[in-house]
Amino acid sequence: MNAISTAAGATEWRIRMSDGSSAILVPESSVITRIYISVKSFFKTIILVFWRFLEKAWNIGMNEPRKVIHCIKVGIALSFVSLFYYMKPLYEGVGGTAMWAVLTVVVVFEYTVGATLYKCLNRATGTFLAGFLAIGIHWIANQSGKRFEPIIMGASIFILASAATFSRFIPAVKARFDYGAMIFILTFTLVSISGYRVENLLNMAHERASTIIIGASLCVITSILIFPIWAGEELHKLVISNLEKQAESLDCCVAEYFSVTEDTKTNTKKMLAFKCVLNSKASEETMANFARWEPAHGNFNFQHPWKYYLKISASMRSCACCIESLTSCINQKDQASEFLRKQLSNTCQQVSSSTAEILKELALNMKTMRKSSRIDILIQEKNSAIQELETQLKEVSGLLIVPKGAKNDKEEEKPVVRTGNVIPMVEIIPAATFASLVIEIATRIEGVVDAVEELFKMAKFKIEDAEMIKPNQPVIKIIN
Amino acid sequence: MNAISTAAGATEWRIRMSDGSSAILVPESSVITRIYISVKSFFKTIILVFWRFLEKAWNIGMNEPRKVIHCIKVGIALSFVSLFYYMKPLYEGVGGTAMWAVLTVVVVFEYTVGATLYKCLNRATGTFLAGFLAIGIHWIANQSGKRFEPIIMGASIFILASAATFSRFIPAVKARFDYGAMIFILTFTLVSISGYRVENLLNMAHERASTIIIGASLCVITSILIFPIWAGEELHKLVISNLEKQAESLDCCVAEYFSVTEDTKTNTKKMLAFKCVLNSKASEETMANFARWEPAHGNFNFQHPWKYYLKISASMRSCACCIESLTSCINQKDQASEFLRKQLSNTCQQVSSSTAEILKELALNMKTMRKSSRIDILIQEKNSAIQELETQLKEVSGLLIVPKGAKNDKEEEKPVVRTGNVIPMVEIIPAATFASLVIEIATRIEGVVDAVEELFKMAKFKIEDAEMIKPNQPVIKIIN
Repeated sequence: MNAISTAAGATEWRIRMSDGSSAILVPESSVITRIYISVKSFFKTIILVFWRFLEKAWNIGMNEPRKVIHCIKVGIALSFVSLFYYMKPLYEGVGGTAMWAVLTVVVVFEYTVGATLYKCLNRATGTFLAGFLAIGIHWIANQSGKRFEPIIMGASIFILASAATFSRFIPAVKARFDYGAMIFILTFTLVSISGYRVENLLNMAHERASTIIIGASLCVITSILIFPIWAGEELHKLVISNLEKQAESLDCCVAEYFSVTEDTKTNTKKMLAFKCVLNSKASEETMANFARWEPAHGNFNFQHPWKYYLKISASMRSCACCIESLTSCINQKDQASEFLRKQLSNTCQQVSSSTAEILKELALNMKTMRKSSRIDILIQEKNSAIQELETQLKEVSGLLIVPKGAKNDKEEEKPVVRTGNVIPMVEIIPAATFASLVIEIATRIEGVVDAVEELFKMAKFKIEDAEMIKPNQPVIKIIN
Repeated sequence: MNAISTAAGATEWRIRMSDGSSAILVPESSVITRIYISVKSFFKTIILVFWRFLEKAWNIGMNEPRKVIHCIKVGIALSFVSLFYYMKPLYEGVGGTAMWAVLTVVVVFEYTVGATLYKCLNRATGTFLAGFLAIGIHWIANQSGKRFEPIIMGASIFILASAATFSRFIPAVKARFDYGAMIFILTFTLVSISGYRVENLLNMAHERASTIIIGASLCVITSILIFPIWAGEELHKLVISNLEKQAESLDCCVAEYFSVTEDTKTNTKKMLAFKCVLNSKASEETMANFARWEPAHGNFNFQHPWKYYLKISASMRSCACCIESLTSCINQKDQASEFLRKQLSNTCQQVSSSTAEILKELALNMKTMRKSSRIDILIQEKNSAIQELETQLKEVSGLLIVPKGAKNDKEEEKPVVRTGNVIPMVEIIPAATFASLVIEIATRIEGVVDAVEELFKMAKFKIEDAEMIKPNQPVIKIIN
C-alpha cells in the first residue's frame, strides 16, 4: 500500500491506510533539522512572551490613558533638557554640568504632582544644606594644614553619612524627608571629595546648583501644566470609590445569603469588592504623604486635612473585616434554617440596604463636597431597621419550642418538610450569627460617618442646611 | 500694707494680702524684656523638640541595634570609596569619573542584602543595556549626516524614555526591574547627549562602567560580609512572629470574653496583637521581592519559594479578620447570658487553645524548619473540640424552654437571678455568635496549615517521621 510520488524533484513517501486516508512519511530528522526546530520553537516562545507583554501593556494603556500621558510628559521634559547640550549658546552657559539637569529630571519626575514636588523640594533642600556644610567643613580642614585635611574630611563623611542614614529610619523623617536625606549624603560626599581636588569649588557648586534648579523647575512646570495628576485628588477619588465598592459588596453579600438561586458566579466579583478596601492601606498612606506637598488645586486648599482620609479608610477597613467574616456565612448558608432565612430576609436586607445607602450618600457627599442632611435621616432609618431586626431575633424563641428530651427526635425529623414553625437550634445559630454580623457592620458604619464628618469639619466643607430640603416648603422660582 | 524691701541693691515691691501671705510686685516688662522672653521660649521649644527627636532616635537605636550597624556600614563604604579621591594613584587610575562610584554607593546601599543586590544588578544591567543602545544609535546618527544627527538623537531619547517609563507601570516589571528601568532612561539620555559632544565616547563609557562596578561590588561586599541583614530571613522571622502573635491574640480574646474580672487594660495590647498581621501586607511583599535576589544563606537556598510566605500571610489575614469581628463581641459581652457564657467557657476555650496551639506549633516548625507530626494530632484535637462545642450549642435548645406567649413575662424576669437553666433568646444569640466565630477561626486556621505545608513541600524541609514519637515505643539508649 506504499507509493512513491515525485513532485518538483523531491522524493516523497506516502502511505495509504486501510481506511482510505493517506499520510506522508517524514524522513528521520538530522541533527541540523532538530537544532533548527528547537531554535524555531525557542524564538516562537520568545515572540509569544513578548506579544503577551505587549498585549498587557496595551491593556494598561487603554484602561488608564493618564499613565500614557505621564510617559509622554517624561519624554517631553527629557527632550527639552537635552536641548542644553544640542544648542551651543545654552551649553556654554551651564558648562559640562548640564548632566545634572538630566539626572534631576530622570530621578525627580514622578507620576503625581505631589510626588514630584516632594522629590524636587527634598532634592533642593538636601543639596543646599549638604553643599554649605561641606564647604564649611572643607574650609576648616583647609585651615588645619595638609596633614589633618584628609583625616577631618574622612571623619566628617563617615559621621554625617551614618547619622543621615540613621535619620531615615525615624518614621517622621522617613515619611517626609527620606529622599532629602539620601541627597544630603550624596551631595555632601561628592562636594567633600571634589573639594579636595577641584580648586574652583564655589564656581562648581554654583554651576551644579543652577542646573539642578533648571531640571527641577522643568519637572514641576511640566508636571503641573500638562494634564496634572494630583496625589490628593487621586486619594479623594480612591476613598470615594472604596465607599461605593463597600456599599455594593455589602448589598450583594446579604442578597446572596437570602437568595434561593445558585447563580453565585456573577455576583462573586461584586461580593468581594470589599477586598479593595482591605488592600489599599499602603497606597493611601503614600498618596496622603505626597498630597501634603501639593498646592491648592481643584476644590482642595493647600494643607487640606489629608490625614483624615486615612482615618476614614481605617474605619472602613474595620467594617470590611466584618464583611469578610460574613462571606464564610454565605458559604455555609445551607446549614441555616430555610424558614428562618425567609423570615429574616426582609429585615436583614433592610438593615444592609440602609447601611449601604449611608455609604453611598457619604460617597456622594464627598464627591460634591457638601454634607447633606439626608445622612441623619438615613442613620435614623438604619437604627430603626436594626431595632426591628433585633425584635425579630427575640421573636425567634417563639419559633423554637423544643421540649426537653424530645430534641433528638426533632433532629431526626429534619429532612422532612416542616409544617408549622418549629426549628432546631443548630439551624437557628448560623442565621442568628449572620444577622448579628449584619448588625455589627451597621453599627461600625457610624465610625465611618464620624470620620467623614470630622474631615468635613476640618476641610470646612459646606453643610447643607436641614431646612433647605424640607419636603413641604414651597419652592420659589426666581426668574432672572 | 505695702512694703519696700531692698536686697543687694535691687528695689522690690512686696504686697501683703489680707490673709497674711505676701506677693512680689513685678514691674511691667519693657519691649526688650518681652522680646527676650519670647526668643528664650522659642529656643526652649526648639531645644525640647530636638531633644525629643534625639530621644526617639536613641530608642530606635537601642531597640534595633542592627539599624545602627547598617548606618556604620554605609559610613564605612562611603569612606572607603572616597579613598579613590584621596589616594593619588587610584585617582589617576579611574580619572575624574570616581564620582560615579560615590553616587553608586549612596544610591545602591540598602538595609537588606536583597535590596542592595536588586539595586546593584538593576543598575548594572540598566547601565550596560542603555550604554550599548545609545552608542549604537549614536553610530547610526553619525552616519546619516550633520543635519539628521540631532533629530535622530532627540527622537530616540523621546521614544525610549517614554517607553521605559511606561514599562514601570506594568506590575511584573515594577516588582523586579523598576530601578533598572529608571537607570536605563538616565544612562541612555546621558550617553546620547554626551556622545554628541564628547569625542572619546568609548573611553568615557569604559571609565564610567568600571567606577560603577567598583561602587556596586563595594556595596555588595560590605553588605554581605559585615553583619548581613537578609530580606529572606527577615520575612521568615516576621511570618513566625505573626503566627505567634495571632495565637496569643486569639487566646487572650477568648479568655477575656469568659473572664469575670474587669482587668481589661493589661490584656488589650495582647488582644490587639492580631493587627500586626493585618498591617504587614506591604512590608511582606517588599521583603519577598527583595529576598528573590539573595544567594543561599543560613538554611535558605537560592530561589527559596518566598512567594509561599505571602500565601501563609494571606490566609493568616483572613483569620485575623475574624478575630477583629470577635473583639466587638467582647465589648458587648454583658449582653450575653452569664449562665451560658459559663456553660460554653470550657469548650470554647478548648477550641481556641487548640487552635492557638496549632499556630504555635506551626511557628515552631518554621523556626526549626522541620515538620513535626504533632500538627496532625493537634488538628484532630481541634476538630474534636469543635465537634464538642457544636454539640453543646445544639444542647442550648434544652436550656431554652420558652412557651409561646409566655416570652414577654420571661424578659421582665431578667434581672432576677435565674434558678434552673431557662435563658431568653436575646441573651443566647450574642454567645452563640461568639462561639460560631471561634469555630470559624478554628476552621480557617486549616488554610494557614495548608499554606505552611505547601511551603514545606516546595522548600523541601525535613518532615519528622510519625513513627519517631510513638509514645509506647521502648527507647534504646546508645552509650558512645
